[in-house]
Amino acid sequence: MSTLFSGEEDIHCGVTVSSVNEPCSDMNEFTEKLKASLSNWEQNRRRAIWFKVNISQIQWIPVLAEHGFRIHNGVGDVITMVRWLPKEEVSRVPIYAHTMVGAGAVVLTSDGSKLLTVRERYRQLPYWKLPGGYVEPHEDIAEAAIREVLEETNIRTEFEGLVTFRHSLTAVFDCSDLYFIVSLKPLNFDIIKQNEEVEEVVWMDVSKFLNHPQVHDMNRKIVRKCLEDRKTGAKITKEVMSHPITGRPQAIYSVTRYPV
Amino acid sequence: MSTLFSGEEDIHCGVTVSSVNEPCSDMNEFTEKLKASLSNWEQNRRRAIWFKVNISQIQWIPVLAEHGFRIHNGVGDVITMVRWLPKEEVSRVPIYAHTMVGAGAVVLTSDGSKLLTVRERYRQLPYWKLPGGYVEPHEDIAEAAIREVLEETNIRTEFEGLVTFRHSLTAVFDCSDLYFIVSLKPLNFDIIKQNEEVEEVVWMDVSKFLNHPQVHDMNRKIVRKCLEDRKTGAKITKEVMSHPITGRPQAIYSVTRYPV
Repeated sequence: MSTLFSGEEDIHCGVTVSSVNEPCSDMNEFTEKLKASLSNWEQNRRRAIWFKVNISQIQWIPVLAEHGFRIHNGVGDVITMVRWLPKEEVSRVPIYAHTMVGAGAVVLTSDGSKLLTVRERYRQLPYWKLPGGYVEPHEDIAEAAIREVLEETNIRTEFEGLVTFRHSLTAVFDCSDLYFIVSLKPLNFDIIKQNEEVEEVVWMDVSKFLNHPQVHDMNRKIVRKCLEDRKTGAKITKEVMSHPITGRPQAIYSVTRYPV
Repeated sequence: MSTLFSGEEDIHCGVTVSSVNEPCSDMNEFTEKLKASLSNWEQNRRRAIWFKVNISQIQWIPVLAEHGFRIHNGVGDVITMVRWLPKEEVSRVPIYAHTMVGAGAVVLTSDGSKLLTVRERYRQLPYWKLPGGYVEPHEDIAEAAIREVLEETNIRTEFEGLVTFRHSLTAVFDCSDLYFIVSLKPLNFDIIKQNEEVEEVVWMDVSKFLNHPQVHDMNRKIVRKCLEDRKTGAKITKEVMSHPITGRPQAIYSVTRYPV
């Protein structure tokens, strides 16, 4: 049996050990192997050392903490701990994600007279809102809005443009929150309330929505903005490009010129 | 000693127990108290049950997992586990943040002839880039860009507008990544390279940057876009408003009209 963890090297001179790939028979073995590996990694000038600890090997965590590791993140069944080895340099390990991302939609009929609006269940006050919700892992923002609209209302839509977004610095789970509002073009009009989170869905006269006492000012402002943008042609559009290094697709949002 | 965890109730009929506030003398006590509390919470129709477990009480984690809790997040010294109690309803607990957020800056002289550009250390290729980095917890996007520019170059700046942003669905730590590029107006011009991550900082002729072989296409495109927006007046501006429910300040970004 090896006396050192092998782990996987990364391009930043770091090493990642996964507890399920390199289990230990007892905590003595783990502790000895950890100590020997750390001095080996230090000699070899490794930088960030990562341990991905499965919940079934949770007893590794306090030992790692004693050896200078800190919790980096916890997702699914895995807690990830990290230690930055270089003593002459401050840690260059970015902290984990701390921003919740959501997407909502303004869905207007082509003549701009009616707006798709929902009333949520489980709320103290029965406000009329724009359909929307959290973006899922690895999900595109526009796709998230399209999915939420379909789930909540049965209306299929296509992306027209980004209207606005909001950045709140204090939100749920002590995170920040980004909420993107996209403009979506409806492809059908037959509402079926499918989602049990939603109390009611209607195509509401825009003028009624803009004057309804149970509509938040922010949503009023957003719908007004969307109507104004329709007139002026202002739009934040989305273009899909390849990432310069990884080559993976990514969405780029920016203002297109007004057709004034 | 109480035989039940008290925890703190939230507005969603949930309960949060913090391990440091309600420690147990041994694991038997913990297990018994957990079982009794769970049946009490079920009787009282509580919904999400949260345990914030300090790393010093890590042995709670496998017991919580046996009782249907899942890891929700891990930050600092605390692993948060959650169990959704209602059997007749799917979980409405949002998953934790999974989007990294960064901010970079286009800093141009007022005549648009020179661009503040940096070359990073620790990179395989010495590309000239826009200054920037990750947004910190609870930090404003524009403030993050201003801070990064100051840290890397000693140039003080003020916010002019958002030029563009990029959404990558596959990024570091298996997260998505949002990168915002703001346009910043320089308030001084004397570069002092302060940050050891940076190899070199210069005010580069814009035409040189736009034709430099060691500039990514994406950055070329961004700088061109910024120059174009200067001519047309296109801009994504930021307005600070209060959140409709919490009253907390939040930044709203949207297109302003061109002064055509």
